[in-house]
Amino acid sequence: GTRDYNEKEMAIREKIFSTIISVFKKHGAVTIDTPVFELKEILSGKYGEDSKLIYDLDDQGGEKCSLRYDLTVPFARFLAMNCSQYPSIKRYQIAKVYRRDQPAMTKGRMREFYQCVKMTEEKGLDPDVADRIGEYVKLKGGKELLDKLFLDESLLSNNNAKAGLNDMVLLFKYLEIFGVLDKISFDLSLARGLDYYTGIIYEAVTEQSGPPNELDETTVGVGSIAAGGRYDNLVGMFASNKKGNIPCVGVSIGVERVFSILLQKVALEQVKANEIEVYVMAVADGLLEDRMKICSELWEAGIKNKPKLQSQFSVCDRDQIPFAVIIGRDELNRGEVRIKDMRSKEQGEGGGAFIKRSDMITELKKRLGKDS
Amino acid sequence: GTRDYNEKEMAIREKIFSTIISVFKKHGAVTIDTPVFELKEILSGKYGEDSKLIYDLDDQGGEKCSLRYDLTVPFARFLAMNCSQYPSIKRYQIAKVYRRDQPAMTKGRMREFYQCVKMTEEKGLDPDVADRIGEYVKLKGGKELLDKLFLDESLLSNNNAKAGLNDMVLLFKYLEIFGVLDKISFDLSLARGLDYYTGIIYEAVTEQSGPPNELDETTVGVGSIAAGGRYDNLVGMFASNKKGNIPCVGVSIGVERVFSILLQKVALEQVKANEIEVYVMAVADGLLEDRMKICSELWEAGIKNKPKLQSQFSVCDRDQIPFAVIIGRDELNRGEVRIKDMRSKEQGEGGGAFIKRSDMITELKKRLGKDS
Repeated sequence: GTRDYNEKEMAIREKIFSTIISVFKKHGAVTIDTPVFELKEILSGKYGEDSKLIYDLDDQGGEKCSLRYDLTVPFARFLAMNCSQYPSIKRYQIAKVYRRDQPAMTKGRMREFYQCVKMTEEKGLDPDVADRIGEYVKLKGGKELLDKLFLDESLLSNNNAKAGLNDMVLLFKYLEIFGVLDKISFDLSLARGLDYYTGIIYEAVTEQSGPPNELDETTVGVGSIAAGGRYDNLVGMFASNKKGNIPCVGVSIGVERVFSILLQKVALEQVKANEIEVYVMAVADGLLEDRMKICSELWEAGIKNKPKLQSQFSVCDRDQIPFAVIIGRDELNRGEVRIKDMRSKEQGEGGGAFIKRSDMITELKKRLGKDS
Repeated sequence: GTRDYNEKEMAIREKIFSTIISVFKKHGAVTIDTPVFELKEILSGKYGEDSKLIYDLDDQGGEKCSLRYDLTVPFARFLAMNCSQYPSIKRYQIAKVYRRDQPAMTKGRMREFYQCVKMTEEKGLDPDVADRIGEYVKLKGGKELLDKLFLDESLLSNNNAKAGLNDMVLLFKYLEIFGVLDKISFDLSLARGLDYYTGIIYEAVTEQSGPPNELDETTVGVGSIAAGGRYDNLVGMFASNKKGNIPCVGVSIGVERVFSILLQKVALEQVKANEIEVYVMAVADGLLEDRMKICSELWEAGIKNKPKLQSQFSVCDRDQIPFAVIIGRDELNRGEVRIKDMRSKEQGEGGGAFIKRSDMITELKKRLGKDS
C-alpha cells in the first residue's frame, strides 16, 4: 500500500505539484503546514464508517496519536486554534495522508498518498438540497435542468429545496461569469462518504478518469481526480468558545490519480529527471583536476553541470544532457575547450566547436538561452 | 514536539527549500521519494543507542512498521532494491523524519522535522583515521595542520593513520580547486552518534549556529546546520546478494535549524506569504459580477489577483499587494478602470490612473514587469 518513486516518476510528480501550486497561487492562496500525526481524539468521530481506516501510532508513552487521514480535519483544528488571526483565509496544502485501505495501486489508490487541498471560507452558497430529493437522483445536466426543476411544483413546495435551487441559480450565474459553464454538470445523484459536509459537494472527472459506464464506477477508470464540498460545522467542533458555524468550502485533488493517468501517457524512460545542462569530460586521462576546475567555474556562473565520472560516453544520451565541454591536453595548452551539442546526431568523440577558455561561460550561456 | 507553520513561516521555509534544491539541481542531483513509514526491521540495528527514539505504528494487523528516523536508511533500502538500475546516483530528498526526542524547539530541535539530504556514491576518499588517534582530538585547523601531522613519526607508523592522512591531502587538493579552502576546518575531535558511518564525517556550522565557547556545545547556538559522512556498508546490509561495500557519502541539512536562525533575522509580519499582484475592488455596491469578470480576465492572462471580499481598504497593505484595479459605476459606463499603485503613500480611495478597460491587461503587465 506504500511505494517508492524513482527520479523519473518524481519529475512527473513535481510537474503535477508545480502546475497545481501555480494555479492556487494565481488565485491568491497561501500555504500552511501541519504535522503528519495529530492527537487521536482530534480525528475521531469525523470520518464516519471510514474511521476504522485510521493508522494509530503505538503507545510509547505520552499522548495517543494517529496519522492524519486527510488535510481537512487538521486544517480545521489549525483554524480553531488561530481563529482570531484569520477572519478569512484561502489556503492550500500539499502533503501525504494515510488510510488503511485496500489499495488499488494501478488506479492510484494507495495507503500513503498526496492530497492537494485548497480551501477557502465564503458565504452565500448553501444548496443542501441534494440529499432530500431522492426521486430526483437520476437527473443530471446543466442550466436547462435547473430551469426544468423550477417548473416542478412539488419540489418548490419544499422550502429547503427551493432555497437550494435559488442557490444553484446564483452558482450557475457565477460559473457563467467565470466562463466554465460548459465544464459543469449538475448531478443530483452525487453523494460523498464523509460526515463533515454540510452543503454543496462536487467531484471532478476527466475523460480518462471517468468510468465508461457511468452507473458502474467500480469497473474501470480511476474515478474522480478531485472532490470537495462545503463544511460549515467542522471548525466549530474544535473551537473552545463554540462560536457557531464557520463557513468553509474546499477541494482535494487526487495527485495519485492524476499521476496514474499521466503515467499511461508518457514514456517513462524519456523523462529527463535531472536538470544538467553541461557535461564536462576529458578525452585524455589525468585531467580530473582540470575538469573539476571547469565544473567549479560553471557552477559559479549558475550553469548546471556535472563532471564525467563514468567511462561511458553515452551518459549524455541517457541523462539527456544538451551540451558537453570536452578538454584534452592539446586544447588546454592552446587555452581552448571544445563545446559540443550532444542533441545533434554527430555522436562519438569528434565534432564540436573550439572556443577560447575565457569565452566558455559566455558561449554556453548564449547556447543555453540564459541572460549573460 | 510537533508544530504547525502558518503562511508567513511557510514562505520562509519554502525559500529555504527552493534555495537548497537549486544548489542540488545545479550539481546534477535528482530526487526520489520513499514512504513515511518503513518495515520495523529495516530500521532496527541502524542507529545504535538512538534506536529507542523510533516511533512505531500501532499493530492493527499486517506488517509492523515504524516512522522513518532519517532519510538515509530508507534510501539505502531503495538502492539495495534497485541496485541494477543505479551504477551510481546523486540523489536529494526533502522530507520529514521522526524522533521521540526531548524537543528543544527554540533551537530547531523537533520531533517532526525536515531533512534535506544529498547523497552520492563515489570512490577514493576513505580517511577512517578520525577515531583512531585519540590523543589528537584536540587538534583543529586547515592545511597547515595536515603538514604538521605529516611530521609526526608515531602517527605515520600506523598504516591506517597514514592512509587517512594521504586521503586528507587529496581532499584538501580538491577543496582548493573548488575554492572553499577558507571555509574548511580539519577537526580531529569530530564524532557522530550513528552506527553506519565508515569514513570521513563532517558538520557545517555558521557563525550564528556555532556555540560561542566551542568546548561547551550544550549551552547556546543551534549546533551544526548540516552534517554527514561516508557509509560504505549500509546499502550492502539490505542487498540480498551481499555484494559487499557500496561506497556512499551524504550530507543532511537541518532545515529546522536554518529556519530558527532565519526567524531571528526577519520581521515575520513583514513577510509576504501570498503572491497576489492585483486586488480587484469596487467603490460602489452591487458590482460583484463586474469584479468577478475582471478577476477572470486577469487569471486568464496569468496575473495573480483576488477580488475584494472584506470591507476594509487596508487588505492591500496587510497582504502587501502592489496594485489595485478599482471600478465604479461612472468608470464602467465610460469603459474605463482605475489602476492604482498601492505601495505609494497616497492611501485612501482617491488617486490612481484611469485606463481604458481594453488596455487593462497590457498596462498591468507593463507595471508588473511581465512580458506581454
